[in-house]
Amino acid sequence: MNFASIAHVIGILLIVTGCSMSLPIACSILYQENDLLPLLYSFAITTGAGIPLFIAFRKNNDLQIKDGFFIAVVGWVVVSAFSAIPYMIHGSIPSFTDAFFEMISGYTTTGATILNDIEAVPHGLLFWRSQTHLLGGMGFLTLAIIFLPHGMGGLRLFRAESSPGQVITKDKFKPRNRDTMVMLWWIYIGLNCIQIILLALGGMPLFDSLCTAFGTVSTSGYSTRNASIGAYNNAYFDWIIILFMFLGGLSFVLIYQVLRGDTNALKINTELRWYLGFLFFFCGAITLILWTKGTYHNISDALRYGTFQIVSLLTTTGFGTADYELWPHSAQMLLFVVCFVGACAGSTTSGIKVVHYVIICKYMYASIRKIFFQPMAVVSLRLNGRTIDDDIISLALCYFIINIFMVLVGGFVMTLTDNMNYSSAISSVIAALMNIGPGFGAVGPSHNFAFISDIGKWFLSWNMLVGRLEMFSALVLFFPSFWEK
Amino acid sequence: MNFASIAHVIGILLIVTGCSMSLPIACSILYQENDLLPLLYSFAITTGAGIPLFIAFRKNNDLQIKDGFFIAVVGWVVVSAFSAIPYMIHGSIPSFTDAFFEMISGYTTTGATILNDIEAVPHGLLFWRSQTHLLGGMGFLTLAIIFLPHGMGGLRLFRAESSPGQVITKDKFKPRNRDTMVMLWWIYIGLNCIQIILLALGGMPLFDSLCTAFGTVSTSGYSTRNASIGAYNNAYFDWIIILFMFLGGLSFVLIYQVLRGDTNALKINTELRWYLGFLFFFCGAITLILWTKGTYHNISDALRYGTFQIVSLLTTTGFGTADYELWPHSAQMLLFVVCFVGACAGSTTSGIKVVHYVIICKYMYASIRKIFFQPMAVVSLRLNGRTIDDDIISLALCYFIINIFMVLVGGFVMTLTDNMNYSSAISSVIAALMNIGPGFGAVGPSHNFAFISDIGKWFLSWNMLVGRLEMFSALVLFFPSFWEK
Ligand SMILES: [K+]
Ligand SMILES: [K+]
Repeated sequence: MNFASIAHVIGILLIVTGCSMSLPIACSILYQENDLLPLLYSFAITTGAGIPLFIAFRKNNDLQIKDGFFIAVVGWVVVSAFSAIPYMIHGSIPSFTDAFFEMISGYTTTGATILNDIEAVPHGLLFWRSQTHLLGGMGFLTLAIIFLPHGMGGLRLFRAESSPGQVITKDKFKPRNRDTMVMLWWIYIGLNCIQIILLALGGMPLFDSLCTAFGTVSTSGYSTRNASIGAYNNAYFDWIIILFMFLGGLSFVLIYQVLRGDTNALKINTELRWYLGFLFFFCGAITLILWTKGTYHNISDALRYGTFQIVSLLTTTGFGTADYELWPHSAQMLLFVVCFVGACAGSTTSGIKVVHYVIICKYMYASIRKIFFQPMAVVSLRLNGRTIDDDIISLALCYFIINIFMVLVGGFVMTLTDNMNYSSAISSVIAALMNIGPGFGAVGPSHNFAFISDIGKWFLSWNMLVGRLEMFSALVLFFPSFWEK
Repeated sequence: MNFASIAHVIGILLIVTGCSMSLPIACSILYQENDLLPLLYSFAITTGAGIPLFIAFRKNNDLQIKDGFFIAVVGWVVVSAFSAIPYMIHGSIPSFTDAFFEMISGYTTTGATILNDIEAVPHGLLFWRSQTHLLGGMGFLTLAIIFLPHGMGGLRLFRAESSPGQVITKDKFKPRNRDTMVMLWWIYIGLNCIQIILLALGGMPLFDSLCTAFGTVSTSGYSTRNASIGAYNNAYFDWIIILFMFLGGLSFVLIYQVLRGDTNALKINTELRWYLGFLFFFCGAITLILWTKGTYHNISDALRYGTFQIVSLLTTTGFGTADYELWPHSAQMLLFVVCFVGACAGSTTSGIKVVHYVIICKYMYASIRKIFFQPMAVVSLRLNGRTIDDDIISLALCYFIINIFMVLVGGFVMTLTDNMNYSSAISSVIAALMNIGPGFGAVGPSHNFAFISDIGKWFLSWNMLVGRLEMFSALVLFFPSFWEK
């Protein structure tokens, strides 16, 4: 482990975090509320901590893959801790546990809140809250890569973090360097801008448009309203947000290829076909259920509310336009299932992701066929027209199974720390681990995470981080081999 | 597919089923209730249907592996259908759907009942109900093998069915022939006899002792009392039943080896160590929870009730001595988790089974180690001191993942057919698929399956069969390759 280089990178992260407070500071000046001083103090503290680290460990040492994993975990924690300072100074979230929870929930694109009254928080702090999504959506560390000297092993750092580009499918387009990273960031910013314009054109206040777009493209889910997107009660907004949640769930590399005119990339993309297939199936099924069971009396409303909630949970966004716990049980079951699905790899989403299901299903089909019918066959899987490496198959299988184990073990931990029934406990872990936000029962759409005990909040924070880093970065730290020379 | 041979085997199964009605008939004569005629008619119908099949398709054709799969599925269905006749004639279960559900629940060792008042059923029919456990526990088809001529490919038939000996671990001791099968049956019958004697010595009525033992060693769970084992409220009975549920969860091949004096087999058995480890962990944890939370005021009661319920659900038996839905949420969560664990392969239990977890955990550890730390390593797993075949690893992974998929998809089906919330729906599928019996919520220990719709009952029946046949026999029928020449 190269702790000097690690400290250097942490320094960069803190400076970036501090500087990014300039936008909420501007917002605070504009709205003239009582959050200017807390933000200024926090800016001073954060950059003040970052600059010495940055300068003191300036040597151009290379980062190894292990350092990358370490930074991925520690970096997110440190940045979340410093980001929590404004809320604590201001007093809108006095407890450090709560403020840290709110911030890591933002950076990990979870969007699970402990705020009982979001609308009471001043605009500068609300903007800061939503801006964590903007920074976290692309993977916070990718920002650091842009500011890192070339020799610092940016790719290794990048690989340790789940984000648009942790491209499991070995695409020929690999995010090799800073330029690619910058390109993906432009696409990301571009999508945000388009959505902001479309929402503002529809009549949403600019402040709300900004915060909502930050929460949509990054598939995160903090809203500035207590009733989430349902507060606007506007079909146009709903459909715009559905569209951009869907786009946020696409592989950004694929978007880049399409923008370059490579439409063939669309045709051969296996994951995209499955993603569309899942969406059609789940949206169609829930619309039928909501319509035939009379939850909504006309089919267009059933389509609007059903599609919104399916896309919101499938892409792990977590926005809401209705209290789905009042829907028929079969509709709720569909929502419970899509929480396990997730969107495409290389998107801003978290969760299990479609590509893993593609690999798992193909692997199972091939294995059962081999064992029962063609013992001499060799199992070889193809994705996007290319053969998949065995390691990728192993990783997909492990990823799915570890997710299931963590949900079950995590549920037990939550029943121990908090007085929740087993299905609420499981749901809270799913909401955190898949970076979704709302769940069912005690953490359902009409509740929040405020009632959870401090230990429970720290445990769920850890789950969010594990989920955002796609398990392995966060889990390999616990392997003895990790700490061997 | 060799339909003549298949019909011949079905004929044998029906004759065995018919003849096995002699015990309940004897019971009925003893108790002088109104169930003698229904049992006699059923005996006549069942053997009357079996004998012509047996004689007409007498040719000594070999059974192929596909025929084995086919018989495994169709055989259990046909036997359950004929076994349902006594209840329909007698009128204690007038509906065919209900009677079939009760019977396949018995044969698959599930023990999920639709009877609202078990104690109202006459003794002959109650005995018949419990006797399905005795026949199903060892795998019903193994009985047929004993009666099959040598040339009929008994092993292939045997392989298609989950039962003591579907020995995934490639033990050197393989159930090659009739003699082995007879040996395992003797161990099984022996365990039943010892338990009957021990229960009767403790003061349980002989009829109850017989039925309870049938439900214990086969890890099935039909009791003759409405309150299950809790009706006796006797610590001695509880501990005897815990012991025999535990023994029913052991590999019968292992028991055979130990009886022959091969204690080394115990030492090298990886699955046994994990099985004991799981039991110690879960029983210890639940005892602590029940004691510290004050559910039971002295630790011996906490140990007794906690251990009973953990062993009951972990071995997929499903007996109850307490309404665990009144226990602390953390205790319920532990019970929910053990439903996914199961006992040893080659035992009378169903469910996911410990050996699969051993393989999955070793595989995941080796894969992550290889991918992240030792890219050149070859993943090679050892079980009981021997290397595991790659196909076995694939099968274990597929088995676990398909179970999870079936629980989620099945839960959706149940919310569609029945008005249950999503956690009750999931729980009903787990209870059926893992052959456990009781679950949580609407199918909790203080409820039964009577309220479920007919479609729901057929769907759960299918899940019981799929679970009992360890998925693959029941699922490969749906592969196109299965039906190719
Ligand atoms: K989210
Ligand atoms: K059972």
